Amino acid sequence: MTRGRFITVEGMEGVGKTTHVQTIRRCLEDAGIDVVVTREPGGTPLAEQIRGLLVSPREEAVDALAETLLVFAARAQHVAMVIEPALHAGQWVLCDRFTDSTFAYQCGGRGVSEALVETLADAVHGHCWPDVTFHLDAPVDVALGRIAERSRDRFEREDAAFFERVRGAFRQRARQQPRIVQIDASGALEGVDRALTDALRGFLDTAAEGA
Amino acid sequence: MTRGRFITVEGMEGVGKTTHVQTIRRCLEDAGIDVVVTREPGGTPLAEQIRGLLVSPREEAVDALAETLLVFAARAQHVAMVIEPALHAGQWVLCDRFTDSTFAYQCGGRGVSEALVETLADAVHGHCWPDVTFHLDAPVDVALGRIAERSRDRFEREDAAFFERVRGAFRQRARQQPRIVQIDASGALEGVDRALTDALRGFLDTAAEGA
Repeated sequence: MTRGRFITVEGMEGVGKTTHVQTIRRCLEDAGIDVVVTREPGGTPLAEQIRGLLVSPREEAVDALAETLLVFAARAQHVAMVIEPALHAGQWVLCDRFTDSTFAYQCGGRGVSEALVETLADAVHGHCWPDVTFHLDAPVDVALGRIAERSRDRFEREDAAFFERVRGAFRQRARQQPRIVQIDASGALEGVDRALTDALRGFLDTAAEGA
Repeated sequence: MTRGRFITVEGMEGVGKTTHVQTIRRCLEDAGIDVVVTREPGGTPLAEQIRGLLVSPREEAVDALAETLLVFAARAQHVAMVIEPALHAGQWVLCDRFTDSTFAYQCGGRGVSEALVETLADAVHGHCWPDVTFHLDAPVDVALGRIAERSRDRFEREDAAFFERVRGAFRQRARQQPRIVQIDASGALEGVDRALTDALRGFLDTAAEGA
C-alpha cells in the first residue's frame, strides 16, 4: 500500500480557505483520489472540544503558551486518530490549517518562541509533515473586509496589527519552506481558483511521477 | 515584598489528598500565613474546562501526548494567571497536584517521554517549582479500596497495573527530588495527619529562618 499524500491549506481569516478547500477536494475526487477532508484545530470529537475552548470569546485573558499547548494537544489527537491512520491506509488527507498556522498565529501573532513550536511539532508529528501546502495570501484590509459581516470568534476579534504580524509570519514561512506554494488570493474568486488548480495539477503530476 | 512559598500535595487517588490539603491550609492559617488554595488540572475558568476534557470518560481513545499537552496547557494558564501573581504578591500557594503528577500519570502510567515532560515543565514554569511537596503514599490496593464507592472519572477507571506504575513513578521521583517529603498514608487518618503536620512544621521552621 502506497502511503497517501498530505495537503494543507493555510492563510488568515477572509482569504477564502473554506471555499478553496472544496475546490481542491473536487479536483482530487475528479482524479479518482480517495481523500479525507479535515480541519484544525479539530478533526476528532476531543479535538473539536479543544477548538471550542480556543475560539470562544472569554473574559479571562488566555496565556499565549496555554493557547499554543491547546493547539498542539488537539493536533496530537488529530494526527494519532485521523491523519496518520488515513495516510497509512493510502488515503490522501486535505487539512484546513496545520502547524504553519501555529507559527503564524502563536509565534507571529503572540510572540511565542519559534524554537518551542519546532520542538512541539517534532514531538507531535516529526514523522508527518504536509507534502504540499497552499498558502492563500491577501492584504489584511482585503481579507478582513471579507469577514466584516461575520460574528467574530476570539481570534477574529484581534486588531489589524495582529493580522499584519500573522500574514508576515505566513509569508516568511512560505519563503523558507519549499513545500509551501503561495497563491495570491487578493483578486476575484475565479482567478484565485485557476491559480490554485494549476498549482495543484503541478503537484499531482509530480506525485504521479513519484508514486 | 518577600515572595510567597509554593507547596504542593501529590499522590494517587484514595491517599486522602483532599482531606490533607485542608489540614495544611488550617496549619498555615493558624500560623498567620495568607494562603491561596488551588488544584490541578484547574484553578482558572479555562483550566477547569480543560480539566473537564481530561477527566470525562469518553468513547474516543485519548492519545497520551494529547493528554500530556492538555495538562500543560491548563498548567500554563494556572501558573500565569494564579500561581505566579500570588507568589509575587507575597501570598503562599497550596496546590493539590502539580508537575510531579504528570511524571507519575503520563510518564509512569502512559509511557510518555520524561525528557519531553522536562522540556514542557521548563517552558511552562522553569522559574516556578514548588518549595516543598508532600507525597502521600499508600499501597495501590489500600488506596483504590478507599475510592471503591465513588463514581469513577477517566483516570480512576484505569486498572491496578496502571496505578502500580503511577505509584512507582511517584516514589522514584520522591527519591530523586530533595523537595519531596514522602508521607506514609496507608494507616489511620490521625496518624497520617500527625506525620504531615510534623513535616509541615519542619518546613515552616526552615522557611522562617530563610525569610
